[in-house]
Amino acid sequence: MGSRLIDSLATTDALADVFSDASVLSAMIAFEAGLARAEAAHGVVPAAVADAIARTAMPERFDAAALAREARASATPAIAFVAALRAMVAEVDPAAARFVHWGATSQDLVDTAMVLCLDRARRVLAPDHNRLLGGLRALSEAHRATVMPGRTLLQPAPPITFGLKTAGWAASVARAGADLAAAFAGARQLQFGGASGTLAMLGAAAGPVEATLASTLNLARPAGPWHTHRDRLAALVSALGVYTAALGKIATDVALLVQAEVAEAEEPGGGSSTMPQKRNPSGATIVIAAATRTPALVAAYLSGAVQAHERAAGGWQAEAPTLAAIVQACGSALSACADMIAGLTVHPDRMLAHLAGPHTVVFAERLSALLTPHMERERATRLVREAVAMTASSGRPLREVVAEVPEIVSALPPESLARIDAPEAYLGEAESFRRRLLAEAAADWEV
Amino acid sequence: MGSRLIDSLATTDALADVFSDASVLSAMIAFEAGLARAEAAHGVVPAAVADAIARTAMPERFDAAALAREARASATPAIAFVAALRAMVAEVDPAAARFVHWGATSQDLVDTAMVLCLDRARRVLAPDHNRLLGGLRALSEAHRATVMPGRTLLQPAPPITFGLKTAGWAASVARAGADLAAAFAGARQLQFGGASGTLAMLGAAAGPVEATLASTLNLARPAGPWHTHRDRLAALVSALGVYTAALGKIATDVALLVQAEVAEAEEPGGGSSTMPQKRNPSGATIVIAAATRTPALVAAYLSGAVQAHERAAGGWQAEAPTLAAIVQACGSALSACADMIAGLTVHPDRMLAHLAGPHTVVFAERLSALLTPHMERERATRLVREAVAMTASSGRPLREVVAEVPEIVSALPPESLARIDAPEAYLGEAESFRRRLLAEAAADWEV
Amino acid sequence: MGSRLIDSLATTDALADVFSDASVLSAMIAFEAGLARAEAAHGVVPAAVADAIARTAMPERFDAAALAREARASATPAIAFVAALRAMVAEVDPAAARFVHWGATSQDLVDTAMVLCLDRARRVLAPDHNRLLGGLRALSEAHRATVMPGRTLLQPAPPITFGLKTAGWAASVARAGADLAAAFAGARQLQFGGASGTLAMLGAAAGPVEATLASTLNLARPAGPWHTHRDRLAALVSALGVYTAALGKIATDVALLVQAEVAEAEEPGGGSSTMPQKRNPSGATIVIAAATRTPALVAAYLSGAVQAHERAAGGWQAEAPTLAAIVQACGSALSACADMIAGLTVHPDRMLAHLAGPHTVVFAERLSALLTPHMERERATRLVREAVAMTASSGRPLREVVAEVPEIVSALPPESLARIDAPEAYLGEAESFRRRLLAEAAADWEV
Amino acid sequence: MGSRLIDSLATTDALADVFSDASVLSAMIAFEAGLARAEAAHGVVPAAVADAIARTAMPERFDAAALAREARASATPAIAFVAALRAMVAEVDPAAARFVHWGATSQDLVDTAMVLCLDRARRVLAPDHNRLLGGLRALSEAHRATVMPGRTLLQPAPPITFGLKTAGWAASVARAGADLAAAFAGARQLQFGGASGTLAMLGAAAGPVEATLASTLNLARPAGPWHTHRDRLAALVSALGVYTAALGKIATDVALLVQAEVAEAEEPGGGSSTMPQKRNPSGATIVIAAATRTPALVAAYLSGAVQAHERAAGGWQAEAPTLAAIVQACGSALSACADMIAGLTVHPDRMLAHLAGPHTVVFAERLSALLTPHMERERATRLVREAVAMTASSGRPLREVVAEVPEIVSALPPESLARIDAPEAYLGEAESFRRRLLAEAAADWEV
Repeated sequence: MGSRLIDSLATTDALADVFSDASVLSAMIAFEAGLARAEAAHGVVPAAVADAIARTAMPERFDAAALAREARASATPAIAFVAALRAMVAEVDPAAARFVHWGATSQDLVDTAMVLCLDRARRVLAPDHNRLLGGLRALSEAHRATVMPGRTLLQPAPPITFGLKTAGWAASVARAGADLAAAFAGARQLQFGGASGTLAMLGAAAGPVEATLASTLNLARPAGPWHTHRDRLAALVSALGVYTAALGKIATDVALLVQAEVAEAEEPGGGSSTMPQKRNPSGATIVIAAATRTPALVAAYLSGAVQAHERAAGGWQAEAPTLAAIVQACGSALSACADMIAGLTVHPDRMLAHLAGPHTVVFAERLSALLTPHMERERATRLVREAVAMTASSGRPLREVVAEVPEIVSALPPESLARIDAPEAYLGEAESFRRRLLAEAAADWEV
Repeated sequence: MGSRLIDSLATTDALADVFSDASVLSAMIAFEAGLARAEAAHGVVPAAVADAIARTAMPERFDAAALAREARASATPAIAFVAALRAMVAEVDPAAARFVHWGATSQDLVDTAMVLCLDRARRVLAPDHNRLLGGLRALSEAHRATVMPGRTLLQPAPPITFGLKTAGWAASVARAGADLAAAFAGARQLQFGGASGTLAMLGAAAGPVEATLASTLNLARPAGPWHTHRDRLAALVSALGVYTAALGKIATDVALLVQAEVAEAEEPGGGSSTMPQKRNPSGATIVIAAATRTPALVAAYLSGAVQAHERAAGGWQAEAPTLAAIVQACGSALSACADMIAGLTVHPDRMLAHLAGPHTVVFAERLSALLTPHMERERATRLVREAVAMTASSGRPLREVVAEVPEIVSALPPESLARIDAPEAYLGEAESFRRRLLAEAAADWEV
Repeated sequence: MGSRLIDSLATTDALADVFSDASVLSAMIAFEAGLARAEAAHGVVPAAVADAIARTAMPERFDAAALAREARASATPAIAFVAALRAMVAEVDPAAARFVHWGATSQDLVDTAMVLCLDRARRVLAPDHNRLLGGLRALSEAHRATVMPGRTLLQPAPPITFGLKTAGWAASVARAGADLAAAFAGARQLQFGGASGTLAMLGAAAGPVEATLASTLNLARPAGPWHTHRDRLAALVSALGVYTAALGKIATDVALLVQAEVAEAEEPGGGSSTMPQKRNPSGATIVIAAATRTPALVAAYLSGAVQAHERAAGGWQAEAPTLAAIVQACGSALSACADMIAGLTVHPDRMLAHLAGPHTVVFAERLSALLTPHMERERATRLVREAVAMTASSGRPLREVVAEVPEIVSALPPESLARIDAPEAYLGEAESFRRRLLAEAAADWEV
Repeated sequence: MGSRLIDSLATTDALADVFSDASVLSAMIAFEAGLARAEAAHGVVPAAVADAIARTAMPERFDAAALAREARASATPAIAFVAALRAMVAEVDPAAARFVHWGATSQDLVDTAMVLCLDRARRVLAPDHNRLLGGLRALSEAHRATVMPGRTLLQPAPPITFGLKTAGWAASVARAGADLAAAFAGARQLQFGGASGTLAMLGAAAGPVEATLASTLNLARPAGPWHTHRDRLAALVSALGVYTAALGKIATDVALLVQAEVAEAEEPGGGSSTMPQKRNPSGATIVIAAATRTPALVAAYLSGAVQAHERAAGGWQAEAPTLAAIVQACGSALSACADMIAGLTVHPDRMLAHLAGPHTVVFAERLSALLTPHMERERATRLVREAVAMTASSGRPLREVVAEVPEIVSALPPESLARIDAPEAYLGEAESFRRRLLAEAAADWEV
């Protein structure tokens, strides 16, 4: 039995597959097969090596638990893997076996395999990213005129539209998503340097083999090996962190909106093991859980990114669990967020109700702005405070309260006073910002 | 196939087992069985519930992957688990099924199961801790008189003994270990509060059931449920972080000592996939890798420990992967560290050689201290600098160099000068500190 | 001009003073003065050294900015400080100047000064801790019978009392506070080892000087120098992190309770620069801000705690800003939290209202528990769901709704049904847990 | 007296100035002055407001400590600042005072001021970045043919050139630097949204005022306010983290190279307070200290980046200390790194010596590669092991050892054997990689 339960909220089935033993082994085999093929193409090793690998090496033939155990002896799973691969090749072609892994170093194998797995992960994330963005754009368009209170420091503020709020969500996901896509692309680099990063064992064939191997694996050929230069992966990890934070912001807003006392939205939600009436914000919860973990995972990666000389003793060996964890956390959050948005029920009536009656105190800013040019600041401040207090205690709307204050009535035109607490009349640039933000969120990822 | 390869350096077989689906499920079953038994003892539910659980519920009957999948719908694996358990009970006793999980909430189940797994982990760590401490004490005793250079900011300093260095290692492991043992003990708390943490569903039987359940599971009965008060687990996680840092310090020292150019010690070591001469510090590398990751895991836990109201939406759900990861990281480091120390070869000759010839410049402090009372500071400083420069450039020992400087010879007695660079004569409190430090490291953990 | 604005929410005046140049310099002077005095007492240096330090060394005579600048040349502020101190001593007693800092190393000075500053910080925190605990105990006693909804995953759950909630806050602060007090006590250790940590320069006087210096500074005498063994400070930093998380939980609860739509409590609160009606939860905000930062500060400390050989090149030098930041963050949160609790207005009527009318759906668990023994689970589940739906849609209390369902009326006794949604009848162990939790929170810190 | 000592290694004078009260106040004044000017330009407020600000508001007129103290009441320094500014304006023009800060919210002021400070910081970093890159390029060119051992897991490996090593340093600094420059550019965004982020108070003038304000302050005009969308700043913080890690790698390599037992390079270095012979790697130490702290600072920022609704209660208020700390940590590291590289002395003779005599065991890979095509793997492995062992124990070079092994002599041509341990003959792609890497490092930052 594996260990899926501990990570049940921390990954998805598809991403758990990407970092499964089967997937990692297939990526390791792909490196060694590609290497053998590239070296054969340039006359470095016999063509028989690649042929034998193709015939005998399959993920399920490796004993992953045994490889993991042996990895502790040499601080890398590569050595036991190569030994096992060599034994498989020797079964069908003993002479070829000696040329397995020729000229490569353990980290060439493990890094390139990780890069291949990361690319598989990117392909899992892409449709969810596009689904989320599409859902957000649709919400924003549908609610361009749905007014609701703004909320600052968790307290009511003048109105916004739900369309503006969701456009803000969409734009930040799109911006962080663009950076993430770029970081994924930047990380698709072959790792190939041999023992000291000079490919010395390959002699004059080194360059051609490197080029062929990169194109075989559909990876970029870097300017040089990056065994202890982890900036590109660090940028990817950071981008995953920033992106997950953008998702966390959305989920936090949703979790607050679906509170029973607010009830401006509802998640499809999950049940409780004991409370029949419960409709928990499960999606938001999963997203927030991921956003809680990812900042530290970024730090873990960066701490390990300071690596000595040509190959690190510690920093590099700390990377794999962190990379796997942060990609899966991000993907788990993304999947849950896309579901949450797709299933979100919005209650415009509740939103509007939170701008009526005693809630019209949020228009105090407007009243203040109207009065200020007409009187001294202290007097305006006093009048606004009194009107706010009366609105709050009486529960009557601000427009009714101010209509009874002679000092205010005499200072402002009646049409201003009559609409002093009309939400749709105090939205400022909401629609303009909404459109500009959605324009930032127009482009999907390539899938 | 599971996913052991990604974590190959991040856990051990024994700890991977502790957090496996089988182990987690067995702990969840233990909670539900214990609950049913305790409730039956106090007349809350029929005895048949516990009987049925005992007869039908076995870890291997649960589909862990399915539970993990369903966990995403309700943001907890508990609901699907309870449903599956209820179905198993219903197979043998339909009437009993309705009383499964009676009065408990999802988090009661998941938290208590985690506490049980943590206790299993503690039992895995204990023998390794004692083995490491024993190894360190033995090294310290064996090398009480083995002189070597102190090194500050990676530069040579006056002599210490290897016995003092290893006693320092032992004492810090012992101190951090005592804190860790106390934190493990503090975290062994039953979680049991029901929906809102009041056990209201159990009526007057609540207290007795709680007490019986705690003693059944061999856990402490807390003053109240701690669903959103995570201080005890936070203290455990922190203690794991501090302890792993203490191991990381040892490994860093070892990795530096086994550098080919230093060669004052050797690890049993691991090979390279391409370099036949390599003897890599595999043990130190695994320890350093763990110490690189654990600080951020502590942060991840603390970030999630701020939890709202009676049950969190996000913080709690972020905990399980972090708890499992940090315990395994610590245990992986501990196992590797104990092996490394058990297999360490020490080269006293190399240590001594690093205090001879040009290396005797480290006694400049001593020369300076001897001269200072006899002359002005500026003059003493000049004489010491010249002696150091001559020693470094000539490669001759300091005692020979100073013997040729009349200003020094006339200021100091010949017996001082003759032994100016004798390491054993400039060890100060090394042996005294060593003994005091070892006294701090005398106690083993209870296994 | 200094830099207080950037840190305005991250410290208090009192704690900013503790880590000010004046305070740090006074601690450094205290070390050097104590050292000179202890060494004179044991005949190592002339008594004139301590006399001269006492006469000439005052914090305001040092140019802190210049020391900071020069610190970059040697990676420690100690060297420039000692040079400046020596020059001051030389002004009044040139012969004594050469014995300033005799036998000590830079880190002895800086570490001991930091330990002294940490102890000053502890004395700043203590009254606030006691004030907070006192406030929480008083709130809990006053509201032992104030019912309110429990809230899980931000959704309503069966009732609790505000007294229970605040007792939970108090107990976690008390537990984390006890650990913090112990960690402060554990960290009060003299650092004194000289160049290599052997005090070799002091010869036979080393032990006596060490003992006298420790008692002079009112610090514990450790088993040996701990230049690269940072476990005690790491434990202190961790305890600060756990404690701040406990404060963060309180503030999160308060921030949610004071939302306008919940309004079960009010903070004294702060205004807005533009919105006259605003009453922001300023106290909660400052606490949450601190709790947001501290986990990573713990990680920063732990990452630096892995230190090589006898004195680190990097890890140690990373400590000071982190130590100062986390102590101040914790203290800023504590001060704000104590104020917030002292000024909290509670609205029991609002709490009660959230358990009335449609909110009585939270008693669905109770209804379910009552029905279960009398019918099959599926039927009970259906009846509860229907009653919940009717309660929610009609806005009428659950007791009225169930009174109209014949299947329910016939199954349960009328007195059960009549009080099915009476909060005070479904509090379970709330009062018992409250008392037990408060018992954990009985002890104050020594001030 | 301020608090420069605690942060003495964590900043530079120039960066401490950027985040000083004077600088922050000047940026806050710039926002308010720019706002008044822009609003006057579009007829929103009288021109007298901007005039009065220009005449009266100077940083030194504000009491920063008082503002910091008052900030705790409202969880922002903005309110007290605006009140103080208004009072200054009122001194010269009471009527204008009421229009100070018109239509803006506290966070508009604080965020924009921070953006202005960050841009000042960028201008401090730029020359150091270019100086470092220039230094690295020069080192790489000068040492294109300087051979040295590669080192993997801190153990010797086949040769590289110091030119390749430094080119790797340069390329990673250049890549991370390009990302950092882009992140700085991306973060130069005006923050301007008013109370709820709609600029409602400005009516139809909102858009024009926003545009004018952005151009006045030389900042980009974003698609909408980003009060709770922190992705751009998060990307900047991450880029600072990645960049500092790249510096940390260089410093780690240098600190290891300057160890007395390696001595392949020397830092200008710093002294010791007690050891006259010491030449500490101060520069490397400062850089490593920064790289130790920055990962957690990134995490602190990301944790706070999840911000609720239109303005956060906690996350945002946690940002300022983190932003200031990470920029200063990065800049402190950069300055120290540029100095370290500029002053680095390289010892090619020591490097070469580490490839001679017993050190020629690093050519075992080469021997193995030559033998493999001619014999079975097992036999080749045995011969190589024996040769390695003999080389290590005798101290004689590998070429001499193998010349005496008939099985090897008969298998390989004499010219291969004669040059088996010639470093310059086993450099593979070192020069090719070096050139490609330097090409990546060709571009400087705009200053």
